[in-house]
Amino acid sequence: MLKALLTDIDGTITNSSRRLDTEAVELIRSLADQGIIVVLASGNAPCFMEALCKMIGTQGSFIAENGGVFRVGYAGKLHVQGDQAEVLRALELLQDHYRKEGMELELFSPTYRFADLAFARTVPVEEVRSILRDQPVQVLDTGYAIHLQSKGINKGTALVALAPELGLVPADFFAIGDSLNDIEMLRTAGIGAAVANAHPAIKAGAQYTAEKEYGKGFVEAIKKYYPYFLAR
Amino acid sequence: MLKALLTDIDGTITNSSRRLDTEAVELIRSLADQGIIVVLASGNAPCFMEALCKMIGTQGSFIAENGGVFRVGYAGKLHVQGDQAEVLRALELLQDHYRKEGMELELFSPTYRFADLAFARTVPVEEVRSILRDQPVQVLDTGYAIHLQSKGINKGTALVALAPELGLVPADFFAIGDSLNDIEMLRTAGIGAAVANAHPAIKAGAQYTAEKEYGKGFVEAIKKYYPYFLAR
Repeated sequence: MLKALLTDIDGTITNSSRRLDTEAVELIRSLADQGIIVVLASGNAPCFMEALCKMIGTQGSFIAENGGVFRVGYAGKLHVQGDQAEVLRALELLQDHYRKEGMELELFSPTYRFADLAFARTVPVEEVRSILRDQPVQVLDTGYAIHLQSKGINKGTALVALAPELGLVPADFFAIGDSLNDIEMLRTAGIGAAVANAHPAIKAGAQYTAEKEYGKGFVEAIKKYYPYFLAR
Repeated sequence: MLKALLTDIDGTITNSSRRLDTEAVELIRSLADQGIIVVLASGNAPCFMEALCKMIGTQGSFIAENGGVFRVGYAGKLHVQGDQAEVLRALELLQDHYRKEGMELELFSPTYRFADLAFARTVPVEEVRSILRDQPVQVLDTGYAIHLQSKGINKGTALVALAPELGLVPADFFAIGDSLNDIEMLRTAGIGAAVANAHPAIKAGAQYTAEKEYGKGFVEAIKKYYPYFLAR
């Protein structure tokens, strides 16, 4: 039986314009109201996730910064995974490199982030990886931003750390996503599912791939697995 | 003709559980898609408003911190109204007072705020006003939190400052809200409307009060004034 839902945001419960799919929102509410734990997962900063939890109407648990931060419930404390200081040193190296070429990286909400750092996709991600090849950081391209993060941190490692705080194990979770950075959480959860717009590698690693894209695919997948969800 | 919508969030486009009303969300999107400028207004911090703008799907303009901060568009810079240093001094005075009584104020996202400071409603607001009577701050009870802010700042003063940045005047706006802190923006806008759950003083000051409460009242009011909105 499934006891909890872990869902990516952008591309999974949004439409193709990155707006929340309202049908997906209503379905998440109905799960939460039945006592199913809902955990929202994203590359966004914790304060962004806080707004989403409140406005969607979950119990307040989230994974932010691609696994770098998680929180259980509205009153929970922020758990940080990885070392932002080493991420910052790598970023400075990168900024020095591009400044010499007359370019400035466009950082995304750096003061709101506790673990990773994200910037606009105005430079080739392979070039970033090459410049930082000797640094203890991983470079992640979510399709929305390039993220620098301590090695070995992802939404899957966050799921492993978060589940016991909820009195659960990762196998109790139904996880769903679309991007390469969702692969570890899909593999770690009891059931991993993908929406139709997902990256081919995500579809290949998922137990179920929806026929529909974006939020409509999320609704399709949840409805299929609905009988396996057990209210606590 | 109306060229822009200015709407409060909590109690106005939410349901009674403070979850976003999905019908209100769809209506806001349809206005934005027709070129009507949408400005979201709230006591929340800017990063909370950023998430809302993206997930609802507006053009990115907001008034945050009850008028203390505003921004035009996703790429706009944050404009701060008032002086947070004097607010901080008043807060410290208050904290000293309550610590002597063995109480600790529960601050809401203080590191994310640029103008006001907000804390939980665990102390009587009239007592707070009395303690701070000689300070250059105003004390606001939104029903969700108690806010301290520089005197003379509100959602209405923010509307006056924000409108020209959009090439508009306040009279071009349809404004809608429910709480006492919405009164100035309703009076400043071309049309001020209230939802049925609004404070009596808000209803008394509004040109139109919806028969329905919360998000359903928002939808009712927008539909009534729909013919007066002019796409730009």
